[in-house]
Amino acid sequence: MYRTHTCGELRVKDVNMEITLAGWVQTIRKFGAITFVDLRDRYGITQLLFGEELQPELDANPLGREFVIQAQGFIQERSNKNMNIATGEIEVQVHTFKILNKSAVPPFTITDETDGGDDLRMKYRYLDLRRNAVKKNLELRYAVSRATRNYLHENNFMDIETPFLIKSTPEGARDFVVPSRMNAGQFYALPQSPQTFKQLLMVSGYDRYYQIVKCFRDEDLRADRQPEFTQIDCEMAFVEQEDILNMFEGLIKHIFHEVKGIHYKEKVERMTWEDAMWHYGNDKPDIRFDMKIATLKKPSSVYINKEDHAVLISGADFKVFDEAEAVLAIAAPGCSEYTRKQTDEITEWVKRPQIGMKGMVFIKCNADGTFKSSVDKFYNEEKLKAIAAATNAAAGDLILILAGAEERTRKATSELRLEMGKRRGYRKENEFKLLWVLDFPLFEYDEEGNRWVARHHPFTSPKPGDIEVMISNNPLIENAEKYLEHPYAGIKANAYDLVLNGNEIGGGSIRIYQRPLQEKMFAALGMSEEEALHKFGFLLGAFEYGAPPHGGLAFGFDRLCAILGGSESIKDFIAFPKNNSGRDVMLDAPSTIDDKQFEELQIKLDLKPA
Amino acid sequence: MYRTHTCGELRVKDVNMEITLAGWVQTIRKFGAITFVDLRDRYGITQLLFGEELQPELDANPLGREFVIQAQGFIQERSNKNMNIATGEIEVQVHTFKILNKSAVPPFTITDETDGGDDLRMKYRYLDLRRNAVKKNLELRYAVSRATRNYLHENNFMDIETPFLIKSTPEGARDFVVPSRMNAGQFYALPQSPQTFKQLLMVSGYDRYYQIVKCFRDEDLRADRQPEFTQIDCEMAFVEQEDILNMFEGLIKHIFHEVKGIHYKEKVERMTWEDAMWHYGNDKPDIRFDMKIATLKKPSSVYINKEDHAVLISGADFKVFDEAEAVLAIAAPGCSEYTRKQTDEITEWVKRPQIGMKGMVFIKCNADGTFKSSVDKFYNEEKLKAIAAATNAAAGDLILILAGAEERTRKATSELRLEMGKRRGYRKENEFKLLWVLDFPLFEYDEEGNRWVARHHPFTSPKPGDIEVMISNNPLIENAEKYLEHPYAGIKANAYDLVLNGNEIGGGSIRIYQRPLQEKMFAALGMSEEEALHKFGFLLGAFEYGAPPHGGLAFGFDRLCAILGGSESIKDFIAFPKNNSGRDVMLDAPSTIDDKQFEELQIKLDLKPA
Repeated sequence: MYRTHTCGELRVKDVNMEITLAGWVQTIRKFGAITFVDLRDRYGITQLLFGEELQPELDANPLGREFVIQAQGFIQERSNKNMNIATGEIEVQVHTFKILNKSAVPPFTITDETDGGDDLRMKYRYLDLRRNAVKKNLELRYAVSRATRNYLHENNFMDIETPFLIKSTPEGARDFVVPSRMNAGQFYALPQSPQTFKQLLMVSGYDRYYQIVKCFRDEDLRADRQPEFTQIDCEMAFVEQEDILNMFEGLIKHIFHEVKGIHYKEKVERMTWEDAMWHYGNDKPDIRFDMKIATLKKPSSVYINKEDHAVLISGADFKVFDEAEAVLAIAAPGCSEYTRKQTDEITEWVKRPQIGMKGMVFIKCNADGTFKSSVDKFYNEEKLKAIAAATNAAAGDLILILAGAEERTRKATSELRLEMGKRRGYRKENEFKLLWVLDFPLFEYDEEGNRWVARHHPFTSPKPGDIEVMISNNPLIENAEKYLEHPYAGIKANAYDLVLNGNEIGGGSIRIYQRPLQEKMFAALGMSEEEALHKFGFLLGAFEYGAPPHGGLAFGFDRLCAILGGSESIKDFIAFPKNNSGRDVMLDAPSTIDDKQFEELQIKLDLKPA
Repeated sequence: MYRTHTCGELRVKDVNMEITLAGWVQTIRKFGAITFVDLRDRYGITQLLFGEELQPELDANPLGREFVIQAQGFIQERSNKNMNIATGEIEVQVHTFKILNKSAVPPFTITDETDGGDDLRMKYRYLDLRRNAVKKNLELRYAVSRATRNYLHENNFMDIETPFLIKSTPEGARDFVVPSRMNAGQFYALPQSPQTFKQLLMVSGYDRYYQIVKCFRDEDLRADRQPEFTQIDCEMAFVEQEDILNMFEGLIKHIFHEVKGIHYKEKVERMTWEDAMWHYGNDKPDIRFDMKIATLKKPSSVYINKEDHAVLISGADFKVFDEAEAVLAIAAPGCSEYTRKQTDEITEWVKRPQIGMKGMVFIKCNADGTFKSSVDKFYNEEKLKAIAAATNAAAGDLILILAGAEERTRKATSELRLEMGKRRGYRKENEFKLLWVLDFPLFEYDEEGNRWVARHHPFTSPKPGDIEVMISNNPLIENAEKYLEHPYAGIKANAYDLVLNGNEIGGGSIRIYQRPLQEKMFAALGMSEEEALHKFGFLLGAFEYGAPPHGGLAFGFDRLCAILGGSESIKDFIAFPKNNSGRDVMLDAPSTIDDKQFEELQIKLDLKPA
């Protein structure tokens, strides 16, 4: 061993002890004939004091930033204590030292606030990983995985490894494929998730399964997606939705406790998908703050059980509202005194292409009870007051109103709500609020193919009450315009998402476990019997030999860690992430392969002209 | 929840309790108007009693093997107790039951000794996994992983995930590659091990890393190899060989204790590679029994520090020995009374192509102190006695002697030793004996290329005393015939293998951490500077910025589990294994992919004519 202790453990009680440390030179400070070195390792920083007698040796072998050295000496109490670090009361009076390895000058500083840009830090990821900020992220990641394993173990879950070289069954996302040399002309696929395997394990009687496992999706990468990502993947047999919600609510609370020291005592709130969309315009609402959406007007085809306030805005000859499919409002607390410049700026914000609105109407609910709006021409004080009441606005609030096509406007209002929440400081990094979103639609309508697609995945069961509707109706959509009237449009999934601070951190469902229902599902998605058998014959087969009722869920492990770490970027929580082109710039991968590899795999390139 | 209890937990103390169970019908026994059903789940088996009043319902909905049912009733003490199972004192008097799912008749019986053949069991792996024998294996696997994680956590190791989509750097084994759609014409590779990443993590200061991780090798599959396999992968910084041996000896002992209840108290034995080869003809000797190889004759070029007993066999005009490069013997205890038929059978055994010997000489060391051999013509009693002494044979032993080329004969003698050990019952399934094998040669000679190849991998450090030899000599072999005289032939690696009962379960090394030495290593393996930079530039770069001394090891997790489970086949310890052609016969993977996939990946098939 190159050391007797780490750089994080020595204290005043160790004074006079002879010790050996090894680590990295963080800083070098010379005071006359004395040199101080802060020596760093994973566990902390300890100050080394090189006395006068060592100066000739230091002159002959000068130290530099990030050199790896070994130093022997004894612990002494510091005269000038640094109470900001755990070892700050002591230092090592060095007797002898040895340079174990030199370091070139790093391309950026190894400090919390580094001067390295993103690309540079990725190229030298092994140096970036030395930064305390990144190290803390990976430590948090390990703590989350440890807490997860312990909780699941205590609850009788078994970690069972599922294969990585499987069969390509492209459904939603694109598969990564792997040419097989031993079976020329054939390919494996990398799993997008262990979905069918965990279901088979339930059929096999393993009762409670989990895995923290890499998954792969070959999708065009948005800012915060990675081609390989990690899931906490779980499945249970003989359960209903309520059992799953309780079990995994428990898991997240355990993680909060172990990793963040937070006692999340309240029962996690629950909301139907429809309510989430109605009140927040979003299936993963951030409920750390209220500011719910008020629907002033909606088309009759959607949210059929909900009422709007169209009566308040109609008949005023305000064309923008009269011609719009939907008119939606939020009341931003305490913003009634926004200046013209401020409201203009928000209007510009909603007109950005990402939001896509044509304009914005505002109503100031003044502190004195009066109102002032951008539509005073059309609505008198009384009407404004009624609109304000419908919007749940109080004196001092600023009502922001968007109008347009239902789907786009609701989405835009949701974005605006989140933006205003951020600006008002309602989205606190250290406040954590969980939410179960329930009762999703089982199907989404695919306009292009005039057919149904699975909102979750093809193994999700409909709600028990909807099974009969699904079995007894023909999934074919005869009248594309009236797809909302098709019986399948109303079928709800036995599915649930867990939302944390406006991010979906996990989701799952009760699964189909009956062959006829699974076959109906495949048919509903437009799969021929032959195709269903080719792709999922093993699962249909398994359902014939005593498949138990079962369900489960998967957490996006990278995102969960990022949110717990107070970050928006999952890359900061992955040791060796890829960039937005799917490249590992440190390795320079992907890269070309040898002719011999092509020959053995019996494939060749077929590049399209650029 | 479909149940209040599992099928494994109810006892006499629960008598009269109202409970609900759910599980699989294991057996159905009808006695007059009463039906007994053994209900099975992961946790055990509980007997259900269906009384006379339920017979009409049972007749209308007959149960069958592997049906999934739910049953409500109360616990009562059994009149006819079965003390072989934990729930054997009670049964459930069923009130109501429900068939949750039917089952077709399984293609083989779900019992410990099944009537299903290998292929059938693999095709219906989800049924095979129900068998208690297979379930026990996966439970053991989970217990080993759990014990491993706990021990490493206690010792400050951090689980850090390394990427799966990396760069192809084919060295030893073949890489599986993954075409990149976003970077057309380029490929990722799946990792053969996280070797370079764990080294980078040491450079990054993570100090102690571990991972239980899937690795991939596209090799022709021998009986007990899988294209994807699992490693317990570990690395430590600031350590020397001794530190690693102690740490991982501790790990294995912890696993023994937690998983098998075995207190392995002794210090694990250590042996140099040379001694292992000399005494056992094998770099992973099974030391549960002695029966060491006696070298009666060897060529002068190998084992130069060891002495043979050539003097005892020479000058007798026995051509077979005189013309052989090597003559090796073992003494099989208590076999002196083998019949002619028995010795003939062993002779046939060594003549099999897998062993490849031309014949065998034997000497019976009779109980009365006399000798009888197949070479009495050439060696008199006195000489036979001397040979017996050199072989460490006692009265009652049978000496078996093989002669031929050194390498092949030593290997054959090793095989013969293992075979005789097995026949004599010395290789007990429940006896576990660990051994560290140390001081491997750093290089192996590659006859075809007349060059050196890395015995372990290119990142293994030579022994500290050999670094200078490596740096200061030219690796080029000028005289192929005298390669053993090249200075590189004698360089020992700072490497170690952990052997359990004659199986290598783990191996590792102290790594090179200096760029010049790493460059020399790449050059020694015949890599040009350009090639080394292209493949491993990131690692050479990392070594420039303060790389600490480090080392580690990896355990073959599948094999470790198999040995602990008393099996020779790793397949039995993998939930979804592949067959010897690399196929998953349940999934029918690998398989063809769609034209659209080819088009997107910009590759096409280039099949050789069959």
